[in-house]
Amino acid sequence: MTTNQLISEIKKKQSFLCVGLDVDLIKIPKHLLEKEDPIFAFNKAIIDATHHLCVAYKPNTAFYEAYGLKGWKALEKTINYLNENHPNIFTIADAKRGDIGNTSTMYAKAFFEDLGFDSVTVAPYMGKDSVEPFLAFEDKHTILLALTSNRGAFDFQTKLVDDIEVYKHVLETSKAWKNSENLMYVVGATKAEYLADIRNIIPDSFLLVPGVGAQGGNLQEVCRYGMTDSVGLLINSSRGIIYASNGEDFATAAAEKAKDLQKQMQMELESYS
Amino acid sequence: MTTNQLISEIKKKQSFLCVGLDVDLIKIPKHLLEKEDPIFAFNKAIIDATHHLCVAYKPNTAFYEAYGLKGWKALEKTINYLNENHPNIFTIADAKRGDIGNTSTMYAKAFFEDLGFDSVTVAPYMGKDSVEPFLAFEDKHTILLALTSNRGAFDFQTKLVDDIEVYKHVLETSKAWKNSENLMYVVGATKAEYLADIRNIIPDSFLLVPGVGAQGGNLQEVCRYGMTDSVGLLINSSRGIIYASNGEDFATAAAEKAKDLQKQMQMELESYS
Repeated sequence: MTTNQLISEIKKKQSFLCVGLDVDLIKIPKHLLEKEDPIFAFNKAIIDATHHLCVAYKPNTAFYEAYGLKGWKALEKTINYLNENHPNIFTIADAKRGDIGNTSTMYAKAFFEDLGFDSVTVAPYMGKDSVEPFLAFEDKHTILLALTSNRGAFDFQTKLVDDIEVYKHVLETSKAWKNSENLMYVVGATKAEYLADIRNIIPDSFLLVPGVGAQGGNLQEVCRYGMTDSVGLLINSSRGIIYASNGEDFATAAAEKAKDLQKQMQMELESYS
Repeated sequence: MTTNQLISEIKKKQSFLCVGLDVDLIKIPKHLLEKEDPIFAFNKAIIDATHHLCVAYKPNTAFYEAYGLKGWKALEKTINYLNENHPNIFTIADAKRGDIGNTSTMYAKAFFEDLGFDSVTVAPYMGKDSVEPFLAFEDKHTILLALTSNRGAFDFQTKLVDDIEVYKHVLETSKAWKNSENLMYVVGATKAEYLADIRNIIPDSFLLVPGVGAQGGNLQEVCRYGMTDSVGLLINSSRGIIYASNGEDFATAAAEKAKDLQKQMQMELESYS
């Protein structure tokens, strides 16, 4: 998917919501555990109930790998279901991969070709030659971790190198990488005031913003500092939507939470247009 | 596996060799492609031919994920084969994972519990709360990326924060994390002279050292600066061993390369004992 297609979808749906599909068998409604593939059954119900309210889905691969082969199969079924039924929805493999050269190419093939995701999250620690192999794939997007929403972000990401934080070096340096137009960035919503500085470095790039809701981030603040003329934001919510209820009404409850966020996003889009 | 068990195995075999199982279907002998599971067939033959010469095997998960479900199944069969037939051999899932809190726990479960690896490689960028969930597993080891062997290592890892390189902050900071006795570190052999400084910070920890051979690292240099009283080193070789030949003699050729390295390691162990 091209960035322009993503922007069209945002404008059409008046939403820049990404729904995180972090499926934990301990948390999903009990009645689904009788199904042959409870993870996929859960995802399918969530997708069916929310696809008109969001523009992206983001399965975090950890939750699938934890269930071994069954989990990987559920991930495959989920992405196939999305690509077949909702080809205009942007898909993110939240995998936080990153390795040396040719090995990163293997990861890129895994997510872009074998599974058919539109994008994958990647960690920057190993530098340019660990990220460029992902960027080489046309109309695929690499979402680089910049400033994450957890406490540990302050361990290394915000340390000062020549009076500039490490995560800003990541932003600045990555702009010079080959095919950097395929880059997006992860920036946690819990640090919305940092977004003004971030927009000085990367004025146009799309940001994937976790941490709204459950982790304390504020949607209005994120939009104030982070929104661009082409929106430039994907706001992720996982637990707040998919675990809104653990009864038989879980999908309806998820849709209500998604609708709440979509409405707030519509207001933001209107106020900045 | 405990660290003491690993040290015993090193002393018994007079080897601290780790064989990297980075299986690329384009590179393995053509006759294996007719097998039902060429990846596992290749790994089994390599393991059968080299297990007496090495103390660890390290499949890089990228090479398995690139083949989707089949690849994940081959990874599962490989680790099961190792655990059933060679329980004294240390197993490393070279996965370079790392995510927020509970999500890291899911990754830890995937590799330590579902697959049954002894250790997993983890990226430090997201800090303490992304790594501690891995450290909570008893007799399991978390191998943290510190200084990698690729050119991109100089993009961020060697930047100075208060006159100290980022990777040294990673080493120093991680020592204070809960259950840090379960930490080992990745340090590339292409930067052997850095090992003296590294040993000042972490005098006793095991180091997983890639980059000997193919990437230009030197075994003697690594031992001079990195070896401890309890050895403290695992030297990895992947392509140099497993692709020594792509004919029907590939396993014998791999064993010869492994034997060469084991002999050099024995000399090092004798000269430092």
